[in-house]
Amino acid sequence: MRVLVMLDGTVTDAETPLIRVDDLGITRGDGVFETILVVGGKPRELGPHLDRLARSAAMLQLPVPDRAAWERCVQLVLDNWQGGDEMALKLVYTRGPEFGDGSPTGYAMGLPIGEKVRAARESGVTAVLLDRGYDPEIVARAPWLLLGAKSLSYAVNMAAYRHAESVGADEVIFVATDGSVLEGPTSNVVTATGNTLRTTPPSSGILRGTTQGALFRAAERAGWVTKVEPMTVRELKDAEAVFLASSVRKITRVHTLDGVVLPDSSALHKELNALYESEY
Amino acid sequence: MRVLVMLDGTVTDAETPLIRVDDLGITRGDGVFETILVVGGKPRELGPHLDRLARSAAMLQLPVPDRAAWERCVQLVLDNWQGGDEMALKLVYTRGPEFGDGSPTGYAMGLPIGEKVRAARESGVTAVLLDRGYDPEIVARAPWLLLGAKSLSYAVNMAAYRHAESVGADEVIFVATDGSVLEGPTSNVVTATGNTLRTTPPSSGILRGTTQGALFRAAERAGWVTKVEPMTVRELKDAEAVFLASSVRKITRVHTLDGVVLPDSSALHKELNALYESEY
Repeated sequence: MRVLVMLDGTVTDAETPLIRVDDLGITRGDGVFETILVVGGKPRELGPHLDRLARSAAMLQLPVPDRAAWERCVQLVLDNWQGGDEMALKLVYTRGPEFGDGSPTGYAMGLPIGEKVRAARESGVTAVLLDRGYDPEIVARAPWLLLGAKSLSYAVNMAAYRHAESVGADEVIFVATDGSVLEGPTSNVVTATGNTLRTTPPSSGILRGTTQGALFRAAERAGWVTKVEPMTVRELKDAEAVFLASSVRKITRVHTLDGVVLPDSSALHKELNALYESEY
Repeated sequence: MRVLVMLDGTVTDAETPLIRVDDLGITRGDGVFETILVVGGKPRELGPHLDRLARSAAMLQLPVPDRAAWERCVQLVLDNWQGGDEMALKLVYTRGPEFGDGSPTGYAMGLPIGEKVRAARESGVTAVLLDRGYDPEIVARAPWLLLGAKSLSYAVNMAAYRHAESVGADEVIFVATDGSVLEGPTSNVVTATGNTLRTTPPSSGILRGTTQGALFRAAERAGWVTKVEPMTVRELKDAEAVFLASSVRKITRVHTLDGVVLPDSSALHKELNALYESEY
């Protein structure tokens, strides 16, 4: 089952066409989104997700999202959900119809968790490194490139997934032209070595991770050292374990990287997932 | 007035919502488009536009566009148009609903030509150079970056326009990190020096220009030398005249580039526009 609630509170079904053909979300990929995991009726990291939606909207110079309206919209999805214990909750916010009254388009969708997600959570994934084509030094001085905004213009991310599939991989880790590690198309990269967890910084033009953030909070309390700093491909490959953090897939173990089978990190994966779950 | 025709031949109006909220065109910018100028009921460069739609679709691994269906769809827009002599005809083709039957979404919209377009045609434009953040050497080896595909993921192009506006400019000319000139967010760059017209090549990761192509055909017949080759910013600035070629705006004169007023190219602009018009 799926639930759809428009930002104005209209509850409806996801099959009914509700978007105009001239919506700039479709004609220009001009909007932002978030995907939130809901477990047992409780959205995880809703605050950080709404914060990030607002940051992305600011980068695209969209109208400031009405936080109270989004919170009501999310609650209506939760109230109307009759699916399983878990739900993927997607928020979409566009600049609205090009020939409309200037109002943005906003909606929230509640979606079931797919089989592929469950498989990735349990068995881990094969990942390939793909060049993302930019140098992080450009991030600060070229804000029009929208690096670090979760925009609807995700065609490149989807193409990267298709490329991965064509070489037998499940996942992608993007690499910058200076050889530094960036992020996955829909995840953050986390490595573990000794008692240190590392991830790459938003200053590299990547999204600040909500799930990575939750994991690091819990890990810090449990005595782990956490670092958010640039990481070379060499450091990634030399790490004791590599994980991808995403809201819906949670902490996913990378068992094979660029064709090389990594040491078994099942036990560590269990430990980190337990830490992450301890936040809820 | 506006006319909307869905790819299946349904003629309707552009205000009725016809797109599902889970269409991958909106949630992932996962689709392609074209914009075609129609004058006196005749679409210009329809063949090259449909060719480019097919090339873009191939780059995104979308289902091969049904050319006959698109031609019928275009004809229905023309048949139903009751606006002025000119029309902007937009074709949109997406991967379709994520939770649908796998069919793509396609539609054509007939739109009036705006005042801003007429002003650009007549008075020319102010353009700024903006870094596009990639090196052309990556184009061939990283096809997942979709450089040269006219995808719906145009948020960066729209952000570049907003940035231009914030510094008092109408237009943008993107520059690669190796200092070579690329294209505008919705146009090709053409320079004139002596009896030579130049534009930048698709191998740099830019779109092959349909209007630039028509201009070059006509210019060659009139004795101009035409070159399609990489161009440095220095060469752009040293050119006797700079133009932007786009379907709807036709050949637009750049009168000010990065804050520097260029020599008056009104006479040459008239000459090139006459050449372009001689194709129809």
